[in-house]
Amino acid sequence: MTAPRYDVLGIGNAIVDVIAKADEEFLVREGLAKGSMALIDEERAETLYGKMGPTIEASGGSAANTLAGIGSFGGKAAFIGKVKADQLGAAFRHDITAIGVDFPTAAATEGVSTARCFILVTPDGERTMSTYLGACQALSVDDIDEAAVKDAAVTYLEGYLWDPPAAKEAFRKAAGIAHEAGRQVALSLSDSFCVDRYRAEFLALLKDGVVDILFANEGELKSLYETGDIETALSAVAIDAKLAAVTLGAKGCAVIQGDERIDVPAAALESAIVDLTGAGDLFAAGFLYGHTNGLGLKRSAELGGLAAAEVIQHVGARPQVELKALGQERGLI
Amino acid sequence: MTAPRYDVLGIGNAIVDVIAKADEEFLVREGLAKGSMALIDEERAETLYGKMGPTIEASGGSAANTLAGIGSFGGKAAFIGKVKADQLGAAFRHDITAIGVDFPTAAATEGVSTARCFILVTPDGERTMSTYLGACQALSVDDIDEAAVKDAAVTYLEGYLWDPPAAKEAFRKAAGIAHEAGRQVALSLSDSFCVDRYRAEFLALLKDGVVDILFANEGELKSLYETGDIETALSAVAIDAKLAAVTLGAKGCAVIQGDERIDVPAAALESAIVDLTGAGDLFAAGFLYGHTNGLGLKRSAELGGLAAAEVIQHVGARPQVELKALGQERGLI
Repeated sequence: MTAPRYDVLGIGNAIVDVIAKADEEFLVREGLAKGSMALIDEERAETLYGKMGPTIEASGGSAANTLAGIGSFGGKAAFIGKVKADQLGAAFRHDITAIGVDFPTAAATEGVSTARCFILVTPDGERTMSTYLGACQALSVDDIDEAAVKDAAVTYLEGYLWDPPAAKEAFRKAAGIAHEAGRQVALSLSDSFCVDRYRAEFLALLKDGVVDILFANEGELKSLYETGDIETALSAVAIDAKLAAVTLGAKGCAVIQGDERIDVPAAALESAIVDLTGAGDLFAAGFLYGHTNGLGLKRSAELGGLAAAEVIQHVGARPQVELKALGQERGLI
Repeated sequence: MTAPRYDVLGIGNAIVDVIAKADEEFLVREGLAKGSMALIDEERAETLYGKMGPTIEASGGSAANTLAGIGSFGGKAAFIGKVKADQLGAAFRHDITAIGVDFPTAAATEGVSTARCFILVTPDGERTMSTYLGACQALSVDDIDEAAVKDAAVTYLEGYLWDPPAAKEAFRKAAGIAHEAGRQVALSLSDSFCVDRYRAEFLALLKDGVVDILFANEGELKSLYETGDIETALSAVAIDAKLAAVTLGAKGCAVIQGDERIDVPAAALESAIVDLTGAGDLFAAGFLYGHTNGLGLKRSAELGGLAAAEVIQHVGARPQVELKALGQERGLI
């Protein structure tokens, strides 16, 4: 097996974040469950946007954020996802390629517009998301770049891909190609509501060995195993997953590989939490950068924690400093 | 004369800011004069954007930033400026109306796209701007809402309006309507390069009484009078302008009205300067809010300093907290 061209190839929803500050009352008034991600249609998107305060726009998307993080660490990464050939789609393409990530997927030239995620950030830094999937719904098996998947050490997939109708098949096709080429497949559970929607399928992916590496946070893992006790959930995932990296908020993370368990405390914050958007995505970025560069599980988890800490100290879901320099400064790479 | 419907009506270029961090070397390599605003064509815009790192997008435009600030203070404001009916134009409209500013100007349905200002922020917080005027070039006398101008205590105009071909006429028309209705006209000099381009015309506007209130920073005022000595420039403007508010960076500002001169120190900063974009625009917002609400010159200048201090402590040219609450907290309103 030749050395892979990419450390990580990710497949996900290509989304532009539309970010505004909001108070708790706004969430209640709009019927938004705090901390969750809800899917909305175009009409609701227009209505909600009309009620939001002034926004800033920044590229987002769960897997895309992870790849931007890997690019920022100096890793080799590629992204497969669908934008429309419109202004937001052009901005998405600019941002992910500007950070050094290959983006081979052609933009849709017709149909609905580039996806938007309306993110309301409350004063505590928690984010509540409403996603209009738009052009993401056009992602299909035809968009899977076989050569690129074969040439990636890890193919990384976001659970949110279960939402658009055809993306799930693209996901399965990519996983098949990756395994045939002797590569690994990783899955992020995305959020606990997403797990609720697709629990049986996600469990089957683990038990059937379609997924080698699982990323989850505490809420997602508890939802997956329908338990209120995180230790029970961790014991269960130790059996089902070959490798699992579970983030535990301020408690850090636990990495589980068979009988082995490594607990890593959270990275220290220099300032207050501003916006939690992207925390899980950037944890996955650091972990996968370390994992694919042979740095070991503990060091990989520490890099994940470092990247997550950076992203929650500012607005927006992608790194604002070079993670490579940050990792070197901390003596981790 | 009835009480005006608006404290301030502003006319300016309707621009979306595209913001990236950059180092000094990038500016030198791209031939960009640090701290300046240069006009660029569409081709150069594409080339420069392609070379920039990941960006965030946020509504901008000098006068528009000022009106957003007045809206944030709880003032009554309206904006006249030209966007295209595209995604960036829709974002611009959303952001200015979401902060409570009326925006009666129809979007252009054909022609070039909504204007973009590519802002490169260096580690010292200084910003270097390259503006593609796009749809702003379509602003014309037909866009001047006569009733709105008549009904505004102050009509505020940015010097940058001299750049697009027809906007200057719109400016003169609006100034004429305002004065006929017994209202005041204010002008911001925008930047020292802009003053360099239109010095004779700007001086004539002052001397001929077309402009009642002048906003300038130190560099702009020195450029206007072609002197290296700020005191000389301040003495000159005391003769030419009925009222001038001149910002002096960390030294605060000087307000000049005939023989009277009020010096106000800069507001204290809670954190480091992050991005100087919008400092002058927000000073004008605070000053005009105070002036049109009868708070006196000193208090108005203090409100200007407060708003400017808020905007330079984060990325982006519009307030991120409610300026009304901030002003009340400081006992200024």
